Formats: sequence, C-alpha cells, structure tokens
Amino acid sequence: MSIEIAGRHRTFEGETAYCRHQSAETRSQMAFAVYTPPAAANGPVPVVFWLAGLTCTEETFMIKAGAQRLAAELGIMLVAPDTSPRGLGLPGEADDWDFGTGAGFYLDATQAPWAANYRMASYVVEELPRAVAANFPADPERMSIMGHSMGGHGALVLGLRNATRYRAISAFAPIANPMDCPWGHKAFGNYLGADRAAWASWDATDLLRSGRAGWEGPPILVDQGRADPFLAEQLKPEAFQAACAATGTPFELYWRDGYDHGYFFISTFMESHLRHHARAFGLTA
Amino acid sequence: MSIEIAGRHRTFEGETAYCRHQSAETRSQMAFAVYTPPAAANGPVPVVFWLAGLTCTEETFMIKAGAQRLAAELGIMLVAPDTSPRGLGLPGEADDWDFGTGAGFYLDATQAPWAANYRMASYVVEELPRAVAANFPADPERMSIMGHSMGGHGALVLGLRNATRYRAISAFAPIANPMDCPWGHKAFGNYLGADRAAWASWDATDLLRSGRAGWEGPPILVDQGRADPFLAEQLKPEAFQAACAATGTPFELYWRDGYDHGYFFISTFMESHLRHHARAFGLTA
Repeated sequence: MSIEIAGRHRTFEGETAYCRHQSAETRSQMAFAVYTPPAAANGPVPVVFWLAGLTCTEETFMIKAGAQRLAAELGIMLVAPDTSPRGLGLPGEADDWDFGTGAGFYLDATQAPWAANYRMASYVVEELPRAVAANFPADPERMSIMGHSMGGHGALVLGLRNATRYRAISAFAPIANPMDCPWGHKAFGNYLGADRAAWASWDATDLLRSGRAGWEGPPILVDQGRADPFLAEQLKPEAFQAACAATGTPFELYWRDGYDHGYFFISTFMESHLRHHARAFGLTA
Repeated sequence: MSIEIAGRHRTFEGETAYCRHQSAETRSQMAFAVYTPPAAANGPVPVVFWLAGLTCTEETFMIKAGAQRLAAELGIMLVAPDTSPRGLGLPGEADDWDFGTGAGFYLDATQAPWAANYRMASYVVEELPRAVAANFPADPERMSIMGHSMGGHGALVLGLRNATRYRAISAFAPIANPMDCPWGHKAFGNYLGADRAAWASWDATDLLRSGRAGWEGPPILVDQGRADPFLAEQLKPEAFQAACAATGTPFELYWRDGYDHGYFFISTFMESHLRHHARAFGLTA
C-alpha cells in the first residue's frame, strides 16, 4: 500500500497532503487528498471520506469546502479521492463531462470497456481506507462518509450498502434517486448495462424501498438548496425522504432557502455536517 | 457606475457576487467579486478590499480563502478585484505568468504600451470603491485593504500612499521590497521604465525609508510562512520590518512555522486578519 506524496501544505496546524498510488481495483494510478488534523500527533483519529461531484478532482474539497478549520478543531481526518480513474485511453472516456473521466459514480461497472477500471465503489470502500490507514494516523474503526451531488449519491449508496463500516452518512444535494434522472440513466446504462434490475442496488432510494439496505446508525443528514438548478430534474431528495419514512430510516433533510449547488452552499453548512460526524465518532455530545 | 452581475451565490446567509463593469481607468472591462454579509440588510457595512497575487482572478479569494464565514459573523463586506486588465491584445501581455495579464502589480504604468490600461492603483483606490458603493450597501468611510504576495505589495503600497483612506492594512507573504527582487525588477522595469527613481514610490519599504509615507492608523499586520519557497528571493519582509522600526511605523509580523505561500496558509490565518480589520472598523474591541 505504498503511496507517493505529491504535495504537503500545512493547514490549521495540521497538513493537507496530495497523494497518488497505484490502485489494484482500478488498475490505474489514483489520486486522493488527506487532511491530517493536529490531534493525530497524539494517536489515530477518526476519518470522514468525502466523495466529490461530477468533474471534480481530489483537490476540489480541500480547496473549496473550508472544512479543515473545523476538522482541526474536532480532531477529524478528511480524505477526498478523485472522482474516477483518468487517462486510461478508453473510447469515449473523456467525451462528456457527466460520464467517464470525472464521473465514476462510485459504483463497480459491469460493462465493457468500463468494468476493468471503473470500480470506484470497491476502491472507495475497500482499497482507499487501507491505503489511508497504512500511511496516515487513521483509526480504521471510526470512519464515515459524506459527499456532494454525484458524491452525495456515492455517500448514500456506499453508506447504505456497508452499514456496519461507516459510523455516519451525510450528503449535500445528493443525486438521491439516480434511476429516475438523466445523469443516472446515462451513467448506469453505460456502466451497468440496459437491464434496470442491475441498477437498483446502486440507487439509494431503491435500496431502501426494496428492503435490501438497512441503517441503524445515526441519522442520515442531507442539506439541499432550494435554488439548486439541478434539484427538480436530477436530485430527487423527496424520493429518498419518502423511502426513509416508509422504512423508518432516521433521516434529517434541511432545505436551505436561496442556496444553489456549489461549494459556497457546501461551505456554509460544512460545520453542521462535520459536527454530525463528530457526534457519531463520540468526539462530541 | 453601472455594473453587471455575472453570478450570485448565497453564502453564509449573505451573498457572493461576481461582477463586471467597464472601467474608465483601465479602458477595459474589469471583473471583481463582492461578498455582502447578512448584516448589510440593516445598513451600510465596512469593506475590506482583497488584492490577490500573480495569476489569480477575482474568483480566487472567494473560493479559496475561507473568509466569508467570519465576514458574515463580523458584518464585513469583502471586495476582490481581478489582478489586471485582460484581453487587451497588447504585445507580450500574455507571454509570462509574472507580468502583464494576471500581474498588474497594483501600480499606474507610465510606459508604452502599458500606460493606457495598466492603472490598477487608480482603479483599486478610486474607481472600484465608487463602483462598489454605488451598487452595494458599503460604507465608504470604513474601508481597509489586505492582500497576498503581489497583492500584499499592493495592500502595503496603496495603504501607505493613501493613509487617510484605509482604516487598516494587512498582508500575507507580501512582496515587501519589490525594488530588490526579480518579480519587482521585471514588473517595475516594464511598467515604470528603467529609471529606478520612478520605482521608489511603488515600493512599500522605500516609501517608509524615504519618509514619503507615514501611517498613523492601526498596526500593519503581516503573516509570513517560514516554508514559503519565495521568501528569500522575492518577499523580503525583514526589509519592510526594518523600515517600520526605523520610522516608528506600528507593525506586527508573525512568522508561521511550516506554512508555505498558498491559500491553505492564508485560510489558516484569515481569522486573525479579519479581526485586525474589524477592530480598526470599531466592530469589535
């Protein structure tokens, strides 16, 4: 699990590091960023994994979300992987901004030519935490997952599929029902094939509706801006909310007047999300 | 003083706006960003102008510095102009990253072909505050100036040259003695000509040494990372510190172990800078 540190930047008395490593899951070099809080000098700290949205890289969250200040204060490590493998040379991988490069959708593809490399689910859930724990003072027993848009979908789905692994789930403006939106249709159709039966286990709303997922941890937290231009067509938080209600899944959905889909929205409510994770880690009451 | 709003993003209950207008000083379209805090709903608020560094745009500070959270709390407006005119078609304007486009150096050029447009000093000190006050709830009697690297030079020089206009000055890793560094030589030589006598009034350290500037306001605040790769060759904070000491200019210089030249460093110490400005505005004790 050796990694290369491509850059280190002291931040709020801790360190933001940009890392690269050869991934067995994606059979390619993957990039991720890690924020190590100053408390890690005294022993392993809990970890929040951040899954970013379409077109983002491992840098986006560290630069734009304003999360390090509170992570330093709370003693939380932050890990942000890139949003897909890159530079594989697969036909069509770089043609669209919402598919392929920068758009891995945090699933394990089953269709050619994607299946060999586009294994972001296994990468994020299995390989990345091992790489982090082998190289940073991370506590593998205290991990949680958070994301935005496509990465909000990732946080919900991977959290629900691996309910014993993550102590908390939260999302900003998640694609909450990808089987029922254009971004999801495009990604799932290409990565998973035409049979919609194969899509359901990668859709947070359907996972709950079908009874294939249960969550007995802390409430799932979602913030959604009412001025988000993607809300009606792509995001569908109400569908997920209804599935939570129908299944008794603890869920908190906050509607934010005037906020759009970007990182200014995310930065505004980052503190409430990190405190949600800190409570699940037992760091705060 | 009409402006065009190119984007509005709700941020910490206030708003980050990207603006464009036709500038009389630079005879070109200029871009700037404004953060309006929620307190502006109750009346005009004080304004901190941020001057960014080489290659940056009006977006950089708003995205990377993490300043809006505290500006919202303190009730301070933030204004960040672009770092030069753009797209003028002048010979050589886009050849180098440290000269021309993205590198206006916050002075008024005197040499062809720059003199007609590269008037960033007059733009920042005169025209931009008027445009802001005409379009946003800004208090023109309470303004201050802050910047980074090339923009730290700008904050020091424009603050010292206009000591009655700005209530406070602060800088992160400023180019504090541009007459004595490669970036300064290149910019001043091209914008101001070969005669070094013309350079002195645009050099913060020389302004103090020569007695052409005085500052009787609050202390000038500077933060400087010890791991800044540009420190020894380009920045020279000790020269400015010595000039302050020799002239009795109140000056606070904080050396930050392990911090480099980037916005992770800036974001870490942004709170201390905004509190410096808030005290000068009388917002806090």
